Amino acid sequence: MESKVITGFDMTERIRDLCSRADAFVVTDANVALSYASLFDMNRTHVVPAGEDSKSLAVYEQVAHAMLGAGCNRMSTLVAVGGGVVGDLTGFVAATYMRGIRWINVPTTLLAQVDSSVGGKTAVDLGDFKNILGAFHLPKEVLVSTHFLYTLPEREWLCGVGEIVKTMFLSRRVHDALSGRLDRLLSRDESVLSECVRECIEYKKHIVEQDFYEHGPRKALNLGHTIGHALEKTDKHRLSHGEYVLIGLEVEAYLLRDMLDEDIYDEMTECVSACNVTVPDFSCEEVASACLKDKKNTGGDVSFMLADYEETREVKLSLEEIVRGLMLWKLSR
Amino acid sequence: MESKVITGFDMTERIRDLCSRADAFVVTDANVALSYASLFDMNRTHVVPAGEDSKSLAVYEQVAHAMLGAGCNRMSTLVAVGGGVVGDLTGFVAATYMRGIRWINVPTTLLAQVDSSVGGKTAVDLGDFKNILGAFHLPKEVLVSTHFLYTLPEREWLCGVGEIVKTMFLSRRVHDALSGRLDRLLSRDESVLSECVRECIEYKKHIVEQDFYEHGPRKALNLGHTIGHALEKTDKHRLSHGEYVLIGLEVEAYLLRDMLDEDIYDEMTECVSACNVTVPDFSCEEVASACLKDKKNTGGDVSFMLADYEETREVKLSLEEIVRGLMLWKLSR
Repeated sequence: MESKVITGFDMTERIRDLCSRADAFVVTDANVALSYASLFDMNRTHVVPAGEDSKSLAVYEQVAHAMLGAGCNRMSTLVAVGGGVVGDLTGFVAATYMRGIRWINVPTTLLAQVDSSVGGKTAVDLGDFKNILGAFHLPKEVLVSTHFLYTLPEREWLCGVGEIVKTMFLSRRVHDALSGRLDRLLSRDESVLSECVRECIEYKKHIVEQDFYEHGPRKALNLGHTIGHALEKTDKHRLSHGEYVLIGLEVEAYLLRDMLDEDIYDEMTECVSACNVTVPDFSCEEVASACLKDKKNTGGDVSFMLADYEETREVKLSLEEIVRGLMLWKLSR
Repeated sequence: MESKVITGFDMTERIRDLCSRADAFVVTDANVALSYASLFDMNRTHVVPAGEDSKSLAVYEQVAHAMLGAGCNRMSTLVAVGGGVVGDLTGFVAATYMRGIRWINVPTTLLAQVDSSVGGKTAVDLGDFKNILGAFHLPKEVLVSTHFLYTLPEREWLCGVGEIVKTMFLSRRVHDALSGRLDRLLSRDESVLSECVRECIEYKKHIVEQDFYEHGPRKALNLGHTIGHALEKTDKHRLSHGEYVLIGLEVEAYLLRDMLDEDIYDEMTECVSACNVTVPDFSCEEVASACLKDKKNTGGDVSFMLADYEETREVKLSLEEIVRGLMLWKLSR
């Protein structure tokens, strides 16, 4: 079980060929369709509105209807060209259309390139609840063309940077690619960028191959996400996902600081601070209780990840410990 | 990959215990909820309208919402108590809720008991198109309690008989259980019934284990279904699925009679005739063209199965051959 990942600086020709294949049906969003119109054959392309609202059952149904109308069958290949929303939605359609067809992912945002493109986790939201309906369904291929990234708005850029910074504490190779060069990544330096993207994908592929269904090692990827997701929810998604992950990294490091190597703690807080994220105000009780509701938690405690560039381990905290920790962190700033 | 199947005459106690388990969430339909009210704890049960219309994305979404409201997480177990509609719908929710949770199937119709309960094929319809969105997701357990069958309306009964008659040409053991005793099955004789149900399930389990994703051997189960499905569609589902399968068995045997052993041909037509199905009028062109649109056909020809109680093989016919064959069959009656 593995996706073939092809990375390059500008794969426009290859993507255009893929999108015009007779067996292909393409899903993209309005922003990408507008900025890269020449990639698409509109007879076999379905354009969804840009933004998280397209990760809904209503849009999922529209895509399936469009595919039926275009005569797609079990041998068709779905192609997703877009960010995480398009990838998650299209992957879920691919996982379930006629009980599962092939799909190819062409991620166009930094977050999708380093994070969601090779994981095989697909889903749509159910009302305010994220990723409630979905499936594990790996794309056959992932085409990662970094030229898309130079038109990304700053907030979307930072979103991907958040995941890369997280990964640097999970993988020595990502750490080596990024350590001391975060400023160059933040200014979209091509060589640092392409190295980081490649190493993040390699790391993620490795983890996913070990643990496709997220029973063990894949949990490592949740570093920074317990608090990150909870904040994202209580703050109503005003910042980007990656910004919440950055804040999550710092806050989780603080909550678990007794168990964390001091150098790692310092590097985490420095990196997060370099990214210049504005921390929103939040209620400690609300965030702690949102942690508990996360679908990854099945007992009364909340699971956190601890990382040291190579190994990770899971630590559980009670609701009370989280509330107290969050209060102390607020006071410490 | 295997479902644990438990069969018995009356498993009311066991089903009631299952439906009241703290980790269980139950889906059933209005008919079953009314006839067997004592089985259900209504705090953890979602009742859908009886009938094919509940195999829709709208009802799928309602079930998922109800589960969220009841606090279901990845460790929850979904329980389907009902016929094929409830099983297909609930199985699809189970396949996708939080990317897949356990489910247990309690089939209450003859068709669901012998046919859909152990296959792991789950789906909902998309408008008029059947089973377009779905997944392969085996139930952990199947509880087959034949006492449910004595309250089935005659048409639903015949529906299951159609699948059993089909299976008798695929499996020597089902053939031995039913041969010369079809009248007793039709009158719901307990011993013939339970033997047929058990043998059909054993056969289906065996086929599904060999070929879960329907790439090869599982195609055998499509015997009678190429014409059956096409008729079902063009006739707008006025008869039950099993009645169309019975007609499909006879018509397909006629279309392929040059390749079929004469004894088998005779036994097929006799069995179908004993079931006393009224064949609806149909347009040969419409039915042939509906065959071609079936999602199992990916080329320009239509695939049919040939069976001799043990082995099956696939035969392809062109649109013209089917139209001509259907016309001749009509004339021969």
